[in-house]
Amino acid sequence: MARPTIADRYDEKIAQRMLDYSNQMPGLPAYLGVKLLRFAPGLLEAEADLVAQEATPSGNVHGGVVAGILDHITGAVVYPLIPDGHWGATTELKLNYISPITPEHLRAEASVLAITNRSAVVRAEAFQGERLVAAAQGTIAIVAPRTVVTGASA
Amino acid sequence: MARPTIADRYDEKIAQRMLDYSNQMPGLPAYLGVKLLRFAPGLLEAEADLVAQEATPSGNVHGGVVAGILDHITGAVVYPLIPDGHWGATTELKLNYISPITPEHLRAEASVLAITNRSAVVRAEAFQGERLVAAAQGTIAIVAPRTVVTGASA
Amino acid sequence: MARPTIADRYDEKIAQRMLDYSNQMPGLPAYLGVKLLRFAPGLLEAEADLVAQEATPSGNVHGGVVAGILDHITGAVVYPLIPDGHWGATTELKLNYISPITPEHLRAEASVLAITNRSAVVRAEAFQGERLVAAAQGTIAIVAPRTVVTGASA
Amino acid sequence: MARPTIADRYDEKIAQRMLDYSNQMPGLPAYLGVKLLRFAPGLLEAEADLVAQEATPSGNVHGGVVAGILDHITGAVVYPLIPDGHWGATTELKLNYISPITPEHLRAEASVLAITNRSAVVRAEAFQGERLVAAAQGTIAIVAPRTVVTGASA
Repeated sequence: MARPTIADRYDEKIAQRMLDYSNQMPGLPAYLGVKLLRFAPGLLEAEADLVAQEATPSGNVHGGVVAGILDHITGAVVYPLIPDGHWGATTELKLNYISPITPEHLRAEASVLAITNRSAVVRAEAFQGERLVAAAQGTIAIVAPRTVVTGASA
Repeated sequence: MARPTIADRYDEKIAQRMLDYSNQMPGLPAYLGVKLLRFAPGLLEAEADLVAQEATPSGNVHGGVVAGILDHITGAVVYPLIPDGHWGATTELKLNYISPITPEHLRAEASVLAITNRSAVVRAEAFQGERLVAAAQGTIAIVAPRTVVTGASA
Repeated sequence: MARPTIADRYDEKIAQRMLDYSNQMPGLPAYLGVKLLRFAPGLLEAEADLVAQEATPSGNVHGGVVAGILDHITGAVVYPLIPDGHWGATTELKLNYISPITPEHLRAEASVLAITNRSAVVRAEAFQGERLVAAAQGTIAIVAPRTVVTGASA
Repeated sequence: MARPTIADRYDEKIAQRMLDYSNQMPGLPAYLGVKLLRFAPGLLEAEADLVAQEATPSGNVHGGVVAGILDHITGAVVYPLIPDGHWGATTELKLNYISPITPEHLRAEASVLAITNRSAVVRAEAFQGERLVAAAQGTIAIVAPRTVVTGASA
């Protein structure tokens, strides 16, 4: 039996729910102003308005802001590809900061390179205008909902 | 002529100024609550109180929070080692998320593996209690203050 | 003045010379059997015949083989984009190993995400048949030919 | 019940068997000349004699050589910590190349930052004399021996 492809796995209803849910999520995503725009199988487009970000002394936005945004969307892109109720947990992420990030609009895209039932390898890019400002590559672990256990756990 | 060592490069006055300055820095570091505690040659200890962080639906702190903290301290650790007025700009960073991060106190350390006049390779770790929660390795470019130029730039 | 684009920088003659030169290069590339096939601006296609690779006890090819191949092509892809005589030196590379690598034909592609006069950010992928087996992202420093110096060097 | 520590997991007999086995392993490790020297709980020391490595045109050893060596030892260091018969499979590895590698003796060390029953996060460094030439950080998946299954597998 063939492995399910990304298209096979894609669940439009979960994608829609993620758009609704994630865009009212409190905490870091709200602080960063990151907004999920559109899912497609294995793809996610997002944006962030960095106008309100207080610049560092260099006049640019703190690199950790784009780290947070790319961490967020590389995790989110897998949700429509995994069973309802499962989690996508970033286990590792590699970021290249390519150009200074200015306190302006930022567009970001995440794409799934490969996925199994246990993990996904994902890439993402962030742009300001036509300028590529950062690129990421990482791994998302797919975690089943925790079952109630008594006693020891591994 | 031998290369300057990390100890040769270390400037205690810049370290002290970084502690004063960074801990009142607005923007992302303030949001994250990251506080620089102590510099030594090639080392930096920091902490963050994540109690106020609104947990994700999994009950944990968003991974982007520790990404931001480790990005911040891997950049900061080089300042006492570079000429006054130069910048440390993170060009790439690799993060392994090792344990779930809870909304509690977090301790983080950055250390310089190697440094030249142009760049540094840096590592960092974050802990909650005795538990290692994340580890990072990356590169900091050392950038001279921008001179005023007319016309083309590379 | 606008920055030169990848197309502006591309030198077909250097690309041709790299194909001739690299495919007779001794040492690791010869051991790995990696062969550069075709350059385009910011792109490089290569292949390796891993039939002769002695499998590890798991029956697969050693992961270090694909590490070496991706290291090789991520460095090579920048040569037609940099001044004749300059070096491309890999300063960091991140690899995700996605599927087991079998002792068969492997195809690999490298692409330049961004380039300045001082460095390039590059990605690469390796395939066996239609299967993605590894993906990489890294940084290539662009190094001017060493001038003859007497005395101290930084 | 507490998680087993690295010391709890350490099996001296597997360590000894790895030294015997790995140092006669054919393929890439033999080509690279990498030799495992000593295990301790969560630690591995190795060396490689790069004298025979044909230098690249820059006069240095190909970066892929140290990539292969660090890939090899980051995988090997976990074997004494996992059940007999299980595999350690590198799923991702990040390398910083810090100094040019010359065709001379190289010393390398791997250490386990954290390990569960399913994966380990590992670091490694390579030295020539006192000079740090490369540093790595990555993830090793711990894979149970494949059981015989009939029908489909994911």
